[in-house]
Amino acid sequence: MTAKRYDVVIIGGGPAGLTAGIYAARARLKSLLIERGATGGWIVNAGLVENYPGFAEGISGLELAEAMNQQALKFGLETLTAEVNGLHLDGEQRVVKTSEGDVVARAIIVAGGSDRVKLGVPGEEEFTGRGVAYCAVCDGYFYRDVPVAVVGGGNAAINEALELTKFASKVTIIHRRDELRATKILQERASAEPKIEFSWNTVVEAIEGEDTVKRLRLKNVKNGEKSTLDISGIFVAVGFKPNTGYLKSVLTLTEDGTIITNEKMETGVPGIFAAGDIRSSSIRQIAAAVGDGAVAAIYAERYIAGK
Amino acid sequence: MTAKRYDVVIIGGGPAGLTAGIYAARARLKSLLIERGATGGWIVNAGLVENYPGFAEGISGLELAEAMNQQALKFGLETLTAEVNGLHLDGEQRVVKTSEGDVVARAIIVAGGSDRVKLGVPGEEEFTGRGVAYCAVCDGYFYRDVPVAVVGGGNAAINEALELTKFASKVTIIHRRDELRATKILQERASAEPKIEFSWNTVVEAIEGEDTVKRLRLKNVKNGEKSTLDISGIFVAVGFKPNTGYLKSVLTLTEDGTIITNEKMETGVPGIFAAGDIRSSSIRQIAAAVGDGAVAAIYAERYIAGK
Repeated sequence: MTAKRYDVVIIGGGPAGLTAGIYAARARLKSLLIERGATGGWIVNAGLVENYPGFAEGISGLELAEAMNQQALKFGLETLTAEVNGLHLDGEQRVVKTSEGDVVARAIIVAGGSDRVKLGVPGEEEFTGRGVAYCAVCDGYFYRDVPVAVVGGGNAAINEALELTKFASKVTIIHRRDELRATKILQERASAEPKIEFSWNTVVEAIEGEDTVKRLRLKNVKNGEKSTLDISGIFVAVGFKPNTGYLKSVLTLTEDGTIITNEKMETGVPGIFAAGDIRSSSIRQIAAAVGDGAVAAIYAERYIAGK
Repeated sequence: MTAKRYDVVIIGGGPAGLTAGIYAARARLKSLLIERGATGGWIVNAGLVENYPGFAEGISGLELAEAMNQQALKFGLETLTAEVNGLHLDGEQRVVKTSEGDVVARAIIVAGGSDRVKLGVPGEEEFTGRGVAYCAVCDGYFYRDVPVAVVGGGNAAINEALELTKFASKVTIIHRRDELRATKILQERASAEPKIEFSWNTVVEAIEGEDTVKRLRLKNVKNGEKSTLDISGIFVAVGFKPNTGYLKSVLTLTEDGTIITNEKMETGVPGIFAAGDIRSSSIRQIAAAVGDGAVAAIYAERYIAGK
């Protein structure tokens, strides 16, 4: 059986991948988008998106994803539901190994996103978008004048907490250890901030509420003591896991597993581009992912034309 | 009179500036956007925008601009209608000189866009968006199976012509000289493309039509001979003029007058960021401008927080 051949293959169907698909298909390149799950990436769970430009009253993540998907299909983007297991170079060809067979492309755009690492505690799934959040820049605005918690001890967690002090009445940082991993300057800023409190040596055991989150069940890992904390929102900031495992043999990844690109979205390997949250310098915003996707598609097109 | 003080001042009200405004205002920074004309930048003249992600059926540039503007105002962005005449550094302060007086900011986001250089011939204004276009990636798709012309002889013009061969039945490159300025490889590609013809030593004297463009009136500059060319679209690719004249004393500009940034949208000067078509590497697309604006605002916020 011969593998199907495309000009551009896009891996990942979030905002970056869909935008790359809109641009590549509209430029009349034979283009395929591979996604393992529902199209739209994590934004389908995002609830109301207020900061994607063009929707004055906001739009639900699900609706936004569906609109982007329809737009890409309209211009002729093909899609394949499959798991991507590997990528290798065969001369000028880039071969994508998927659970549905091999696909061959002249250029690849890697846009598989980053999974937010979850706490894995009762209530987390249930209340996602209703008190459980993963991004202060995205959702902090919804928690004005109410108490919130941030879970984590790294730079991301402290940045989230500092951002939340603009909105929330109080921010409790819950950390499983007795010191932060965050850089000194962020620690100093957090300590100097009157709205921030710390709950050291503590883990979240459950997230509880009714329609929305009301309280956390906590446990002190040193002495086993249990307690509850009344809050209206919990921001989980324990890390990201970029979907790049299958790329290790082809691309050089950062320690975090993200991909370094230049401003043309080029990776180190000719004909392989990356876009969106999977990039090392991504700000993990829909607006930026969409920009990345357009840039990657335009430079992929120029790359193909240059052959 | 004391100058008004802000956390962030954004210069330019196109998609990049408005997105920076949405992000800065939503992060509760005291933010001002300065625009000399109508908010929205050049997209208010763009007609139907098909490739901005999230609008499956497309949206008019005017409506899109208005939605972005409303969204920014909702979060508290202030606006000022004024001409910006200068920018200077005063210690930690950035002072913006405007026709309405001085404004002081902790961080500046320069998003003043680039003007498309026009031909300045009869019919050009009248038929803009109805046969007169300035961007093949944006509008080429609307000219399927009809003849078009491209005016210009540089890399941009040849790239436009090559892009248009995917759509149009024929592409005539109209150039005032008898040779191209474009790089050799682009010239070779254009010469090898059967759909492309050249009209050397020729200028456009007028653009004519009814509802939409029908023909060009041409003149040979060597022998003075006049002729007409029947086409359905004319793509003007004679250059861009970034709105950066007032920045020369503060920022290092490229030969073209554009601004070089890194991927955080930082210019060489701390606290001054740039976003959108004014950047040297911009692909001049709304999607990318919006991405730039979000990135610039987030790094401007971090810059201010670090003080």
